[in-house]
Amino acid sequence: MLVELVTTGSELLLGEITNENSRYLSKELNALGYSVIYHTTVGDNPQRMEQALRTALGRVDMVITTGGLGPTQGDMTKIIGARIMGLPLEYHPEIMDSITEWVAAHHGSRVLTENQKRQAMIPRGAVSFANGAGTAPGVAIQKNGKILVHLPGPPSEMRWMYKNRLKPWLMQHFKSQGYIQSLYIKIYDMGEAFIEEKLMDLVKGQSNPTMAMYARPGYVEVRLTAQAATMEAGQALLTPICKELQRRLQRTAVSYNNETIADVLGREITMRHMTVSAAESCTGGLVGSFITDVAGASDYFRGSAGTYCNEMKHKILQVSQETLDTYTEVSSQTAAEMAQGSRRLYGADIAVSTTGIAGPGGGTEEKPVGLVYTGVAGPWGTVTHKDVYPGDRMEVKRRAAVRAIYYIVQYILENSK
Amino acid sequence: MLVELVTTGSELLLGEITNENSRYLSKELNALGYSVIYHTTVGDNPQRMEQALRTALGRVDMVITTGGLGPTQGDMTKIIGARIMGLPLEYHPEIMDSITEWVAAHHGSRVLTENQKRQAMIPRGAVSFANGAGTAPGVAIQKNGKILVHLPGPPSEMRWMYKNRLKPWLMQHFKSQGYIQSLYIKIYDMGEAFIEEKLMDLVKGQSNPTMAMYARPGYVEVRLTAQAATMEAGQALLTPICKELQRRLQRTAVSYNNETIADVLGREITMRHMTVSAAESCTGGLVGSFITDVAGASDYFRGSAGTYCNEMKHKILQVSQETLDTYTEVSSQTAAEMAQGSRRLYGADIAVSTTGIAGPGGGTEEKPVGLVYTGVAGPWGTVTHKDVYPGDRMEVKRRAAVRAIYYIVQYILENSK
Repeated sequence: MLVELVTTGSELLLGEITNENSRYLSKELNALGYSVIYHTTVGDNPQRMEQALRTALGRVDMVITTGGLGPTQGDMTKIIGARIMGLPLEYHPEIMDSITEWVAAHHGSRVLTENQKRQAMIPRGAVSFANGAGTAPGVAIQKNGKILVHLPGPPSEMRWMYKNRLKPWLMQHFKSQGYIQSLYIKIYDMGEAFIEEKLMDLVKGQSNPTMAMYARPGYVEVRLTAQAATMEAGQALLTPICKELQRRLQRTAVSYNNETIADVLGREITMRHMTVSAAESCTGGLVGSFITDVAGASDYFRGSAGTYCNEMKHKILQVSQETLDTYTEVSSQTAAEMAQGSRRLYGADIAVSTTGIAGPGGGTEEKPVGLVYTGVAGPWGTVTHKDVYPGDRMEVKRRAAVRAIYYIVQYILENSK
Repeated sequence: MLVELVTTGSELLLGEITNENSRYLSKELNALGYSVIYHTTVGDNPQRMEQALRTALGRVDMVITTGGLGPTQGDMTKIIGARIMGLPLEYHPEIMDSITEWVAAHHGSRVLTENQKRQAMIPRGAVSFANGAGTAPGVAIQKNGKILVHLPGPPSEMRWMYKNRLKPWLMQHFKSQGYIQSLYIKIYDMGEAFIEEKLMDLVKGQSNPTMAMYARPGYVEVRLTAQAATMEAGQALLTPICKELQRRLQRTAVSYNNETIADVLGREITMRHMTVSAAESCTGGLVGSFITDVAGASDYFRGSAGTYCNEMKHKILQVSQETLDTYTEVSSQTAAEMAQGSRRLYGADIAVSTTGIAGPGGGTEEKPVGLVYTGVAGPWGTVTHKDVYPGDRMEVKRRAAVRAIYYIVQYILENSK
């Protein structure tokens, strides 16, 4: 079944908030096997709202709106929806009672405004969904083979209404849409185009499963999606491709689904009962922060020495003055000594270091903004990497930090069984 | 001028990411006085994409697309846009050269895939925007009184292209749209309700400027918006309110517009020719990372000592074993000694420390998850703060890091003229 989400509210068109409702409903509905093929956002303008709803009902089977069900004059979604579907609005005293109770319980007043009473108006013959997280009831209208659903706009209310009202209603009234299984693979050391050449033949010309690729800060994400009648059947379509992919990307650290590279580090380090530490210059602490985003990191992470100035690189990490004078702080030599210094200082098995030019200033002809040296020191010696990252200061820091953690994992995978 | 944003990519329709591009462009374009009246999201489906673009061009003056300019087969936006506008695509060797250079600089290879060559195809007569943050050039087509703009999809590339290419182009080629001036004030130590009481009478009953308030992680954001024919006129509406607001929030650190609390720290520290350092346990390096997000931080930031385990708190920061044994690492005493230790280690004027329980594990009856002690040590003595932050592990880290930087600023404002 094809679905369009129509979200309303000038907050979205003014760019004050991101459209979290569309993201949430898309993820939920796709998992149920519905195909969300359009998102539309329109403001509190009756004509445009009506046009948007008519367009949507003309090109999909089910339209779900969020927002515009509140008690204020601007809230008109339900009224316009009823007009388009050719249904009169009818007052439901029992809905009014539950609204009154909710207001009493949460605002301690039993006196309702005229506007609040409008919330108890429901299109004739429509299903109304009682709202357990607010006052505005949801509505579902079925007519001429089309379904029009209205949900409230505040994300917490909307999520409550979906989970407790719309989802059960959909599962009860419409036969299973089948399931969509997705597998996400994050690859940290190859470009999009290169990966496509490496993997595309796996799904070339196939419509099930399909492959898609996204450039993310510091890595590329590959998505494999299979559609099947059951979850098991979907998994059965993905497993062989996943195996082949692992074979082709052998020795390359990848993470799956919601795993971050810091999760992979935690897994690989814990498996080997090792500890890790860091020394950060241009990343300023972001490497340590990413590593400690993982619950339980305290079991293997000793800490990160932020040495933002040369004096501290020398004093805390014992980077030799000679190295700093000869090669400057942005060099593979300094990166190497920083990693070795962090390893000594924290008594860690493996230490990683970053030193570079995050920008916007400080770049030169031979040392441009985005140039970052990463060092990894451990039981198998010290290795350094040189990268030039695109993007602004925060982007460079982020890419450098993600990559630094990747280089630790790579160091482990290449040297240890 | 009426604008529609058409964002592409099945990742949006699958609910894998929120639509950050639409939020960013809406905010920027509204500030320039353009009216963004529709957001549309469509997947990598040629027919639907064409339909969405035709619909958009039929109802607004300017359509801006993001996504679908990459080197993979799925990337088709530019091709469909050119077809709709009736323009042939032409190969531009000079664009190919810059792409080749970029790939060489960032992936160390001069060999391009066939797919990458497609990025150098530009619709005849279109303006092409060289991409300084990636390979895909942007495109702007003007025909029959309509404007069609294509920008790349990855948010960092898209932002770079808007700031450095599209925005200047718009300001040069189109007369002023009238201006919407917004002033954003971030307040770090008061709740929404309290702030509303303090400020709401300033704009009560006014429609220009208007005030809105949003709860953000670690602070509350107040938005004042004025509409006027010129920037000066808009500013003239906001200035008196801003002045009054500064008077009412005296001695409370606030940041304006895109300023972060780390920007404020940089401003206040630089003004006083002071230096700052940190010592981090539960924030894992995020305080140092936030401070170094500010360009030029190297002038006043000495570094952050990540001491994730007690042994390092003692060894690197000289937190006394007695303190750790008597009060544990999550205590105001430890926070105080950590800050003093960091100040000594880095020879900084002021040092901040964080120690707490980020969760999900480790919480107890009297020391729950979210409990964080912050210490500030400097020329005016040592102060500590105790907070309990809501949210998951990353949420707690984020709130604690933002607040820690705020506490440094507060320490400076309260003690120094």
